[in-house]
Amino acid sequence: MPHVRSWIDVPAGSDFTIYNLPYGAFRKSDGPPRLGVAIGTKVLDLHAAAAAGLFDDVCDRGALQAPLLNAFLALGRPTWKAVRLRLAALLRDDDSSDGRLRALDHTKFFTEQRDVRMTMPVYVGDYVDFYSSLEHATNLGKLFRPNSEPLLPNWRHIPIGYHGRSSTIVVDGTPVVRPSGQRKPPNADVPVFGPSTRLDIELEIGFITGRGNRMGEPIPIGDAREHIFGLVLVNDWSARDIQAWEYQPLGPFLGKSFATTISPWIVTLDALDPFRTASPSQDPAPLPYLQTAERWAYDIRLAVELQTEKMRAAGFAPKTVSQTNFKEMYWTMAQQLAHASVNGTLIRPGDLYASGTISGKTAENFGSFIEMTWNGSKPLQLPDGETRAFLEDGDEVTLRGWCEAGDFRVGFGKASGRIVAAR
Amino acid sequence: MPHVRSWIDVPAGSDFTIYNLPYGAFRKSDGPPRLGVAIGTKVLDLHAAAAAGLFDDVCDRGALQAPLLNAFLALGRPTWKAVRLRLAALLRDDDSSDGRLRALDHTKFFTEQRDVRMTMPVYVGDYVDFYSSLEHATNLGKLFRPNSEPLLPNWRHIPIGYHGRSSTIVVDGTPVVRPSGQRKPPNADVPVFGPSTRLDIELEIGFITGRGNRMGEPIPIGDAREHIFGLVLVNDWSARDIQAWEYQPLGPFLGKSFATTISPWIVTLDALDPFRTASPSQDPAPLPYLQTAERWAYDIRLAVELQTEKMRAAGFAPKTVSQTNFKEMYWTMAQQLAHASVNGTLIRPGDLYASGTISGKTAENFGSFIEMTWNGSKPLQLPDGETRAFLEDGDEVTLRGWCEAGDFRVGFGKASGRIVAAR
Repeated sequence: MPHVRSWIDVPAGSDFTIYNLPYGAFRKSDGPPRLGVAIGTKVLDLHAAAAAGLFDDVCDRGALQAPLLNAFLALGRPTWKAVRLRLAALLRDDDSSDGRLRALDHTKFFTEQRDVRMTMPVYVGDYVDFYSSLEHATNLGKLFRPNSEPLLPNWRHIPIGYHGRSSTIVVDGTPVVRPSGQRKPPNADVPVFGPSTRLDIELEIGFITGRGNRMGEPIPIGDAREHIFGLVLVNDWSARDIQAWEYQPLGPFLGKSFATTISPWIVTLDALDPFRTASPSQDPAPLPYLQTAERWAYDIRLAVELQTEKMRAAGFAPKTVSQTNFKEMYWTMAQQLAHASVNGTLIRPGDLYASGTISGKTAENFGSFIEMTWNGSKPLQLPDGETRAFLEDGDEVTLRGWCEAGDFRVGFGKASGRIVAAR
Repeated sequence: MPHVRSWIDVPAGSDFTIYNLPYGAFRKSDGPPRLGVAIGTKVLDLHAAAAAGLFDDVCDRGALQAPLLNAFLALGRPTWKAVRLRLAALLRDDDSSDGRLRALDHTKFFTEQRDVRMTMPVYVGDYVDFYSSLEHATNLGKLFRPNSEPLLPNWRHIPIGYHGRSSTIVVDGTPVVRPSGQRKPPNADVPVFGPSTRLDIELEIGFITGRGNRMGEPIPIGDAREHIFGLVLVNDWSARDIQAWEYQPLGPFLGKSFATTISPWIVTLDALDPFRTASPSQDPAPLPYLQTAERWAYDIRLAVELQTEKMRAAGFAPKTVSQTNFKEMYWTMAQQLAHASVNGTLIRPGDLYASGTISGKTAENFGSFIEMTWNGSKPLQLPDGETRAFLEDGDEVTLRGWCEAGDFRVGFGKASGRIVAAR
């Protein structure tokens, strides 16, 4: 990578370098949501930049002045690429820069991120959650079905997935109310009702779709890149007690549908391109519609942080309880999209397809508490002397993700949520 | 019921009597979708009627002039009731009628239903499919898990359900492309790929939600009536071979997501009120949040018709292959809504909650071909000498539903779809 600087100050270690340029939606005080691009500690107001005519030759102005990205996503990869190149030209500080933005009154175009509130960047029509980590699927099989083979016979043939709830996808910072529901204690004959006592997270990455297909026409795996706009961090909050009692035979429902938190900035596939790598080999080889010679793994480092209410009060920093990497996933995003659409279902701009929990090989790399604490049997030790098996009220969980090569960094920011007592 | 007539001619046996007044969306030639109300063979143009000021004192004009019902649904039951009363007053032919509509130029307000194309009446944010017929759940358990107890231990405690795909919900008349996917033949070691060879239907009824809740706040069962706007017929098309191979452990996905057909007219809960009845008793008693003294079963007669391509060509009428009744469902709509929201998930105006397949006690009352033909082992005999285990290309399936008491009829019209060869 050539070394490129922006004339906007980007602090060392920032997720939002000029190589990144992720898209989001933000509100200043009580104004309506506007689309923006993160750079350093600031957000560039795309609505204002479009109004200044800076994209008129590459993109419909209305798509950049909407409160959500869906119309922009529908325009497809050539437009995404042209707008990205224009943004880089407007923000870079060298001979090839486009000086028009720099010449304007910056106070109209830039706001500090700390002064805005991020909102949902897209309207999610359909949300699908996959189950694509071999380690996670094996772990959950052992924990949920202790008396049988952990990995079911279909797992190595199908990127297993199911539909989740769209209405409760929220951005970073939204409180999560502890859900109530039915659970059946291990030795009880009948279920009881009450707040979940086994509240958990799932560390995931999700992709947001672009243009989409026509109903009845699958998306071939070779076309996946045309249809995947970008990625976000996803916390698929999970009430394990509710899930365990309800999930057979039709899958998870209320154990998941109460909240799903995403990071507010969509990091584009183009920004992640330098971090593409080979994915783990698959044995047996999947069916031809799931085969591609393209490299579809991405070297994205991931971390889960936990800070309890007592830690916060006593001044303890959040503790990193797990670290892993997205590149180890067995099934790739291209395979997930080709599979999800192979029956001709309609993929729309703004759909969210999450990876499933990203777990590595050992407890320090697991993407959920039920795995890290092995069903609660090995509680985590926290710096203030507390322990945790599952989440308690006041706990705050933060997911982080970033790519790094020397001083070349592209990051996701964070997806954070604090548990509020059941109503 | 007092006998009420409309000054619009309503043929004997019509589903769309003045007692019904269901809502839908329609297009005339290439015009944009408009909201309408069915009466006899006609559709009343709500956009035009609102423009004439006929609802200004009871409802925001914009909600009736939108292309979808979601804004109207968000207004809540008092408005729904006031608009329904006004519609009845405008259309009835007696001393209590409101003569304003009758005095206007009818050609501006009424179109024959055969001259319009119905479109989706609502934007469906989230679609949930339940599994609430005891007979169906028992049958499917026997067929999908022949070596274990057919009804799982949770079934009599939880209205089991899962999220389906919103993007492929289509109205009556939309062709259904046969889906392709993975299936594993019974004695094969590995799956094969190709068009489904076990394409099926599921006869269901779904409810459409109104105002909705706030995220984190359950809807108590006693409030269900405030949140349920009306009902439609639902055909949850199912590829049994794809479903059987994919559905463990996370539930059905591609076996269902290719298409779901609904009837285009939403029959309101108010119109169905005279047909309320007691639902089957539940043993064991459900947890308190699922208990209500209100009667929540509805006496709705249902039929499934099949017409193959050869039958069509030879002039054979569609054959009724099953008849059943919605009133026998074990779990009620009120229980389904209270359960779905008990974890605080967000219910939005226009969500669709389908009942699950409605099966009676014997093969003539089963709501799917896999049940009617007992996994294909007892094919149906058709009047032209053909037989059917599962659906073949060119087959057309039509669901019908109606309530009747003497000459007092409230019907759903139909939800029909014809199978098109796989692409």
